[in-house]
Amino acid sequence: MNEGERLDDLQTGGYYLIQNPNQFCFGIDAVLLSSFAKVKRGEKALDLGTGTGIIPILLEAKNEGSFYAGLEIQEASADMARRSVQYNRLEGKVDITTGDIKEAASIYGAASFDVITVNPPYMISEHGVKNVNDAKYIARHEVCCTLQDVLEQSEKLLKEKGRFYMVHRPFRLPEILKGMCEHRIEPKRMRLVHSYVDKEPTMVLVEGLRSGRPRIQVEPPLIVYEKNGQYTEEVLRMYGEMKKFR
Amino acid sequence: MNEGERLDDLQTGGYYLIQNPNQFCFGIDAVLLSSFAKVKRGEKALDLGTGTGIIPILLEAKNEGSFYAGLEIQEASADMARRSVQYNRLEGKVDITTGDIKEAASIYGAASFDVITVNPPYMISEHGVKNVNDAKYIARHEVCCTLQDVLEQSEKLLKEKGRFYMVHRPFRLPEILKGMCEHRIEPKRMRLVHSYVDKEPTMVLVEGLRSGRPRIQVEPPLIVYEKNGQYTEEVLRMYGEMKKFR
Repeated sequence: MNEGERLDDLQTGGYYLIQNPNQFCFGIDAVLLSSFAKVKRGEKALDLGTGTGIIPILLEAKNEGSFYAGLEIQEASADMARRSVQYNRLEGKVDITTGDIKEAASIYGAASFDVITVNPPYMISEHGVKNVNDAKYIARHEVCCTLQDVLEQSEKLLKEKGRFYMVHRPFRLPEILKGMCEHRIEPKRMRLVHSYVDKEPTMVLVEGLRSGRPRIQVEPPLIVYEKNGQYTEEVLRMYGEMKKFR
Repeated sequence: MNEGERLDDLQTGGYYLIQNPNQFCFGIDAVLLSSFAKVKRGEKALDLGTGTGIIPILLEAKNEGSFYAGLEIQEASADMARRSVQYNRLEGKVDITTGDIKEAASIYGAASFDVITVNPPYMISEHGVKNVNDAKYIARHEVCCTLQDVLEQSEKLLKEKGRFYMVHRPFRLPEILKGMCEHRIEPKRMRLVHSYVDKEPTMVLVEGLRSGRPRIQVEPPLIVYEKNGQYTEEVLRMYGEMKKFR
């Protein structure tokens, strides 16, 4: 482990994750996305902009896919992800590549995945921002890639009838659904995530089907907290699922 | 009143509505849409496919607009709507025209409304269906006009920065948001309606802004029933709002 890093127990399949709290730590969005996404037996999955590798590692713990790839542009994060893979003895099952989302289809080849997951930067990049080299800023703002880049590459990377899973912010919902349609990733399932039942949603989970037919299933709201500030039963179960697996 | 018709108390501004239960009676979607839509002082509003005129009459009761138009293709419904307008002494304030949504912009003229409301047919019309002349079937299926027709005409009918309010079914959400964007009616506000908090939504309310900038506000879920099957406080308040007005 390098200076400033810590080893976090994922409470999932006995796995741990190396993170540096001064840089970027995964949040509940990664946990929700890894519960929302499904990888079937034998399928190959790719996580675009994987950061420290939380999504492929959680997906491996909870699914029976044959292979999980992660692509990350920031070498420091990719390096941490690779060391987490080694620590968990997941070599051969999880593979981390340093590279640019905008070049993902040429890195991996067209129609090479059954499943794509992505927890992209949510915020449109502002002009004239100073910390564009800051790991947190890059993870949260569209400095290195935009939503359109993600969709363009996913359209190429997915096999026919492959599935696309994304977590994003609701304020960009029209752009998300329109963009998916335009890239032939038909939105098939959607769930809004609300901190409390009477509050506006803070996240949206969406599943798309490559070359699918139009018809979306909007699911019941996912409520994170009870009135008293405790996690709801459903969210507790998501964390619990992880524990029960092995 | 004609045979088979009845006079229903709207419990709103002392207004009544003539309906024929053998044909089509308004549902909670009309009540929700007329609460979701806002008409400001002096504004002109048009309801596309107004049926028996429930939306313009409710909007008139709850808002301070200067004029409310309703367009309906089925003469029997338009006639009932006109008689309800007379019964409530709303001539000059509410006007019902018999006509086709697909010709709305040539009937009323371009850029002639501040607000458009629409509770369009939800279902895609099936091929080879027999009862295409049935009032209920026409009100529920895209026999006479499609979602694209509604958006195309609304784009023309709305003034710059005019507002569009629609209630529809969530399973068509990508098509709705994409279509609005393509017709320069930017989706700005959205609310999903769930019968119960743990059930999938049955309706979606959406507000668009002619030539607006992209950014949607997704509101908290609108829950219709408590666990015990009673209306929630919020829905009771919507019905209550109507009573309190005058």
